[in-house]
Amino acid sequence: MTKPPGSLGVLEQLAVRLASLQATETPRADAAQIVLFAGDHGITAQGVSAYPSAVTVEMLRNFARGGAAIAVLARELGVPLHVVDAGTLAPGEIDGVVCDKPRQGTRDFSREPAMTAAELEFALAAGHRGVARATAGAADILILGEMGIGNTTAAAALAAALIGARPADIVGAGTGLGSDGMSHKADVIAAALALHGLDRAPASPLPALAAVGGLEIAALVGAIVASAQARIPVLIDGFIVSAAALAAVRINPSVAPWLIYSHRSMERGHRLILDALGAEPILDLKLRLGEGSGAALALPVVRLACALHAGMATFAEAQISGPEP
Amino acid sequence: MTKPPGSLGVLEQLAVRLASLQATETPRADAAQIVLFAGDHGITAQGVSAYPSAVTVEMLRNFARGGAAIAVLARELGVPLHVVDAGTLAPGEIDGVVCDKPRQGTRDFSREPAMTAAELEFALAAGHRGVARATAGAADILILGEMGIGNTTAAAALAAALIGARPADIVGAGTGLGSDGMSHKADVIAAALALHGLDRAPASPLPALAAVGGLEIAALVGAIVASAQARIPVLIDGFIVSAAALAAVRINPSVAPWLIYSHRSMERGHRLILDALGAEPILDLKLRLGEGSGAALALPVVRLACALHAGMATFAEAQISGPEP
Repeated sequence: MTKPPGSLGVLEQLAVRLASLQATETPRADAAQIVLFAGDHGITAQGVSAYPSAVTVEMLRNFARGGAAIAVLARELGVPLHVVDAGTLAPGEIDGVVCDKPRQGTRDFSREPAMTAAELEFALAAGHRGVARATAGAADILILGEMGIGNTTAAAALAAALIGARPADIVGAGTGLGSDGMSHKADVIAAALALHGLDRAPASPLPALAAVGGLEIAALVGAIVASAQARIPVLIDGFIVSAAALAAVRINPSVAPWLIYSHRSMERGHRLILDALGAEPILDLKLRLGEGSGAALALPVVRLACALHAGMATFAEAQISGPEP
Repeated sequence: MTKPPGSLGVLEQLAVRLASLQATETPRADAAQIVLFAGDHGITAQGVSAYPSAVTVEMLRNFARGGAAIAVLARELGVPLHVVDAGTLAPGEIDGVVCDKPRQGTRDFSREPAMTAAELEFALAAGHRGVARATAGAADILILGEMGIGNTTAAAALAAALIGARPADIVGAGTGLGSDGMSHKADVIAAALALHGLDRAPASPLPALAAVGGLEIAALVGAIVASAQARIPVLIDGFIVSAAALAAVRINPSVAPWLIYSHRSMERGHRLILDALGAEPILDLKLRLGEGSGAALALPVVRLACALHAGMATFAEAQISGPEP
């Protein structure tokens, strides 16, 4: 290629990695799909979120109607957005949203396990089904997103259990807690980890998911495993999806090569999760929105990396002199 | 907007800044233009580059034929690429390239000033002309790029003079020098700064440009000033364009608000220049290619920031609950 070796930095690494994963000399990210899983969280009864649980379902309607950030990004990028209710409090179906849930919301994990083993199984399978539906046609790459008031608390508890981090080191502001709120959230998580015997890290991923996870987080874990099994690279979003990725990799380490980390989020504990995964994200845009928005923002970079790989002339083709001897 | 305040991070800042610069509630980056200025450098006689000067003109042909990185990016982004020979060694016109130069290459600034005051004047005006041609139709935003074997040496000398940095702290690998080469390059620059009386920083920008600059760097300075005067925001690329931006801001501080820094390059001295400009770039992709490639890669992020600003629903429109009281 007509450039100094390595001068395209991260873009060269991305193109080479995708080429290897897709087993082709011309990697592609044109046919992308976004799958967003939503769920509600019983732990919100403990006052751990700045917004009420009602917002989860209200936002599902906003995704379907095109007014949410990820819906705007999907439209601009020309990427289909598939929304799955994997466990919200919605009593019925929502227009434009696939309903695939074992129950309405998790239980309050400060008092009892968030879900039973059977409910966990169902949510993992919902993740598989979501990927199967979205990738039924062509899919070069998958973007996963989430929505769920309270899910930074569940993700922080899960990650703390898997990494063995102190809850106070992994808890962040979520949708907008102040320092008192964050300190309360860390205390709630610490007590719950002790209650469920998850304070002796590293915890086993499936029991930890059932005890303190979320239905949409379990669906994400299932989706990540399903995508890797289907040999489709996944662009991992921020804090919640990264926590699901950590659980997926702990369940099945062969998943790891299929995961491309899109961005470093502002949510405080993301750094610890990325470190545990050995991840070097593409972007750092100080996002803390979720929905898959950071992964969607990284898609143009991945697409341009592929275009450069496919479209640049070689030194010979362009008759360009090599380095000085 | 239906998101926690500030949760779109850098994208919100970008949209708000562009809205203010474009004096509109719906900022846009759809109509972008890329102007690339090329020049050759007499200082290459001192063995400061890994590639021979012939590559500059060879690459101009590669830009025009579409095989270079910036040409691929321009095509993918749907952005016109305007290439200006502002001072290469090419004896005649090159197909698809505008020739607008006062001479063929600069003089060797280790022995004499790189250009005369009249040649500097011509190159600055070539920058103005380049912007005028490219923005004659619609232009929401401008991307500036460069090509010139030896121009990291000229840009490092200019930046060292303007900032008062030690050449050894600002010199980088360019197209691929090793540590001996970089140390030689720093020595050449240090001696030249002493020769031209530029070692008592901060130097005056115009005399410094004439003494150790490049014709394409002077054209970039003119282009940056012209774009700000035309009230068109500029996406600043890496090391070379940032050095030109520093000179432009020192010449006319009112230019500063119009400059949006696209990426942090791997070229070692870029950090010092960005610090001198108080710049916080959007991307950090470990690039060191130039051509405007980093600015082009940031364009999708800027466009998506505008799309989110324009396309997201408000809490009231989407009937979404506000924060907990």
